Amino acid sequence: MPEQDTLARLTAVIESRQPAAGGDPDKSYVARLLHKGPDAFLKKIGEEATEVVMAAKDADHGAPREKIVAEMADLWFHCMVALAHYGLSADDVVAELGRREGLSGIEEKALRKVREREASGG
Amino acid sequence: MPEQDTLARLTAVIESRQPAAGGDPDKSYVARLLHKGPDAFLKKIGEEATEVVMAAKDADHGAPREKIVAEMADLWFHCMVALAHYGLSADDVVAELGRREGLSGIEEKALRKVREREASGG
Amino acid sequence: MPEQDTLARLTAVIESRQPAAGGDPDKSYVARLLHKGPDAFLKKIGEEATEVVMAAKDADHGAPREKIVAEMADLWFHCMVALAHYGLSADDVVAELGRREGLSGIEEKALRKVREREASGG
Amino acid sequence: MPEQDTLARLTAVIESRQPAAGGDPDKSYVARLLHKGPDAFLKKIGEEATEVVMAAKDADHGAPREKIVAEMADLWFHCMVALAHYGLSADDVVAELGRREGLSGIEEKALRKVREREASGG
Repeated sequence: MPEQDTLARLTAVIESRQPAAGGDPDKSYVARLLHKGPDAFLKKIGEEATEVVMAAKDADHGAPREKIVAEMADLWFHCMVALAHYGLSADDVVAELGRREGLSGIEEKALRKVREREASGG
Repeated sequence: MPEQDTLARLTAVIESRQPAAGGDPDKSYVARLLHKGPDAFLKKIGEEATEVVMAAKDADHGAPREKIVAEMADLWFHCMVALAHYGLSADDVVAELGRREGLSGIEEKALRKVREREASGG
Repeated sequence: MPEQDTLARLTAVIESRQPAAGGDPDKSYVARLLHKGPDAFLKKIGEEATEVVMAAKDADHGAPREKIVAEMADLWFHCMVALAHYGLSADDVVAELGRREGLSGIEEKALRKVREREASGG
Repeated sequence: MPEQDTLARLTAVIESRQPAAGGDPDKSYVARLLHKGPDAFLKKIGEEATEVVMAAKDADHGAPREKIVAEMADLWFHCMVALAHYGLSADDVVAELGRREGLSGIEEKALRKVREREASGG
């Protein structure tokens, strides 16, 4: 429940940084990203995903796992900024995960993809 | 609350696919990823992040936003598989987001990074 | 010179796999990628970039550097397939590198970007 | 041949920016990246790969292809900086492409990967 509260509160703060809500690019990092437009935050998604991978590889070799958590928080955070730009939110992503859930759903989807890829020869 | 339930249930299902929990790589996509080890799911994080970016660019040009939600669900899902491997979970990521929250925290961190980058000349 | 020959020969082979040149998606991996269209090879660029990063991190921790070379060859190769789709080639990329060269050019561009980013506050 | 000269000259300039060659992090962007170490330039590889993908998607929707060339030059350039750090160069990557060449080789490798993935069920 606290976690759910966290995502909801974070969503609300990001929404308040939207240009239409008066977010000020000079005072807020989120407002600046939203003001710059898609390329700014999409580039960050690619960059932060790479940082997650680097932190995980370092953890494989003995570095603290906390770095993975920090980088993944950065990744999810920039994902939430992107979602806001497109009129979406973390709720939509979690709902989608829920629709596939029981993992029956998710695994079926993943296995279907694998099978399609096999059928098309990769 | 339902969302929180969803993440918690998904975490539980992923945990049940861990090798130590008897996850069967021949029957479960998640068990197979966890069995293969880090490179398998880390590669997917890079791949799915790229698919999020492509779906967002398509949406900029008129494609339905639902594709963004679907790709981001894939990205977060593979992140959750990675977290499980490292003995972590979505709870840890959300807690980290909470620690930075009020956005005061998050924006301060982001702005601090920007300032550090400026100080070091990029 | 042999290297230049290599890139030119590789470009010629990729061109021969274009749909308009009669490339057969059932016989050739390159023809299949080109036939599937942008999302197929752009996704590979994201995936292969991630594999380069993983191979480099492994090398930092003692793994053989040969893996970096192999993954970077995969990355550049899929870049060349993408270039072909857009009516471009490795020649265009190398010419662009040449235009910035003496590194005066490249470093000026990089430093200009850094300065712009600083000016805009990140 | 001019292209080959370009890659060789660029390699020489990057080598002159190595810490051991007296590269000055305060004067040169390349020297700064090499001085900072792997995470600095590996992160750029992930970021620039994402920018290539974005430029390609924009081109699909009518934007000029020149942006693809510029972003791919950035990507290959940061790859060359990484190669230098690991005692490698573009020569090694091109030689690897040559070894697989005739595309017989490259396509065989790609098809073998696809087949392996199929055999392992994804």
